[in-house]
Amino acid sequence: MSSEKKKILLSQGSGGKQSHDLIQDLFFNYFNNEILNEAGDSAIFKINSEYSAFTTDSYVVEPLFFPGGDIGKLAVFGTVNDLSVSGAIPRYLSVGFIIEEGLDFNILENVVISMAAAAKMANLRIVTGDTKVVNRGKCDKLFINTSGIGELQPKFTNISSGENIRAGDKILVNGFVGDHGMAVMSARNELKVRAEVKSDCAPLNGLIQQILNVSEDVKFMRDATRGGLATVLAEIAQTKNTGIDLFETKIPVRESVRGICEIFGFDPLYVANEGKLIIIVSGKDTEKVLETMRKNEFGKETQIIGEVVNNHPGKVILHTSIGGKHIVDILSGDQLPRIC
Amino acid sequence: MSSEKKKILLSQGSGGKQSHDLIQDLFFNYFNNEILNEAGDSAIFKINSEYSAFTTDSYVVEPLFFPGGDIGKLAVFGTVNDLSVSGAIPRYLSVGFIIEEGLDFNILENVVISMAAAAKMANLRIVTGDTKVVNRGKCDKLFINTSGIGELQPKFTNISSGENIRAGDKILVNGFVGDHGMAVMSARNELKVRAEVKSDCAPLNGLIQQILNVSEDVKFMRDATRGGLATVLAEIAQTKNTGIDLFETKIPVRESVRGICEIFGFDPLYVANEGKLIIIVSGKDTEKVLETMRKNEFGKETQIIGEVVNNHPGKVILHTSIGGKHIVDILSGDQLPRIC
Repeated sequence: MSSEKKKILLSQGSGGKQSHDLIQDLFFNYFNNEILNEAGDSAIFKINSEYSAFTTDSYVVEPLFFPGGDIGKLAVFGTVNDLSVSGAIPRYLSVGFIIEEGLDFNILENVVISMAAAAKMANLRIVTGDTKVVNRGKCDKLFINTSGIGELQPKFTNISSGENIRAGDKILVNGFVGDHGMAVMSARNELKVRAEVKSDCAPLNGLIQQILNVSEDVKFMRDATRGGLATVLAEIAQTKNTGIDLFETKIPVRESVRGICEIFGFDPLYVANEGKLIIIVSGKDTEKVLETMRKNEFGKETQIIGEVVNNHPGKVILHTSIGGKHIVDILSGDQLPRIC
Repeated sequence: MSSEKKKILLSQGSGGKQSHDLIQDLFFNYFNNEILNEAGDSAIFKINSEYSAFTTDSYVVEPLFFPGGDIGKLAVFGTVNDLSVSGAIPRYLSVGFIIEEGLDFNILENVVISMAAAAKMANLRIVTGDTKVVNRGKCDKLFINTSGIGELQPKFTNISSGENIRAGDKILVNGFVGDHGMAVMSARNELKVRAEVKSDCAPLNGLIQQILNVSEDVKFMRDATRGGLATVLAEIAQTKNTGIDLFETKIPVRESVRGICEIFGFDPLYVANEGKLIIIVSGKDTEKVLETMRKNEFGKETQIIGEVVNNHPGKVILHTSIGGKHIVDILSGDQLPRIC
């Protein structure tokens, strides 16, 4: 690999193709081990002879506060969701703060209050932490890392990898996509149109536990954050070399989000979410899971948006509202930096 | 608490008194739970009905490479050491990168190579990670968070809190103090004198396991990082309301480090280390532990530097080389920002 003049690009943190390549070239290459290589939202391993899930995320969202959330809430729920989609019950969180010298104490305090409330809501504890302060101008106000540990029942250890995905499985999403990205963007000066859209930032552990209580036939779950719904599905189709049919008219997108996306040239399927669960479940359990999800406050607008097919292996085909067919690929380039 | 006009100061990330106050006022106040409140280097809890240790640290050291180490090595060994001093065996690490747009790929690659080697040396695996890229000027090249999980035997669960510390216990340190801080400082432009001193950055898990194999009477361990040896001992004396006598002539300080410290007005006892273990052990086990430590590559220069006493509870008294007595307090103010 000729790397002499290469520079790190914003797109390498986008969650899309360039992120994927960087992770492969560097982290999987050098840190190479069978747990890491599973590449799920959480690492799955045995500790003290029982299965655990372990995950980490740094949050650099700009601005720190936006409609529907803030960096603290995001940091707690983001890690809760990464553990939950692996089938685990989130138990303990660590938090690392990197603070710019001169930040208002009030801002930090409000973020901490928000994190405490989020941890309570998600029913887990923040048990350890670290604080670094860097000189003025050496970071942008506040970055937060959260890492989390969850307990995982052995019967759910293959959800993360999606190894049991088969043709006939259905794909569901628990509501409107694109809200988070458009809420953060509307909170930035960049967007002159002030949209009435709030981030969907939410903890998915309660919803997911309810699903796992009614079905042992959940094949795969992922929260559709950076890269959006499209990237999650394109990745799983490629990784498992399976086909996916996706039905545009079934995918919930708010009118307001659709409007902003049209103006600014975004595709809502690629816009980040912070409370959206993509779930693949066997055909026979689909109705049961759908019913359970719709009863949960974070699943009221759940829709069956697609299915796993034997045709076009490795590809996601979007059937559009006007009868067209498009290949849906992984996000390429950088859509919205510092969205989480 | 009147916080209206308060701003975050560099000293609040120093690891000394101001850090302690910030942590108490904010994090312990709002995140309040019995695991966090133990305030050890790692959180100790049961997961899957067995004890585990869990810790997190963010690394913002400047420069990224310095004599004897780099940010990657520091990030791996720092978290290894935090788990190890809690009596745990480090097993799994997460890594979160926050990268400034435009960073040379080569720099990142070299850091990753260093982390992979460090993980191998410390016999643990990096199992999950996250990458964020922020716009140019919004962070300083590269920040790294590592979080780690270790397995902990029930008989070692009270080492972290130091609850069994008693008068007559001896205090040992595994070698020269102040090397890391002076190595980083010498690598900065600030220091015109180029000192021939290397960081002591090292994994302490092997040494600590050897100690725990020969003694079940280890009362307390901590790695003396930010705030140095003085802050660790002053904190434990205050927390446990016990007296500590410290003997200046027994504390190993290199001539080169002593020299730089004199020129720049630093006290080597407050300078950060990255491979220094402070251990408190019962009088009867001291010789056995000393002998074991000196056989290990990271313990060759181990010294008995002090003891726990009934006099002056809550205070550390330094007996100086010229027969004086000084109270040793927790670091106050900001000595060296971005040392780790």
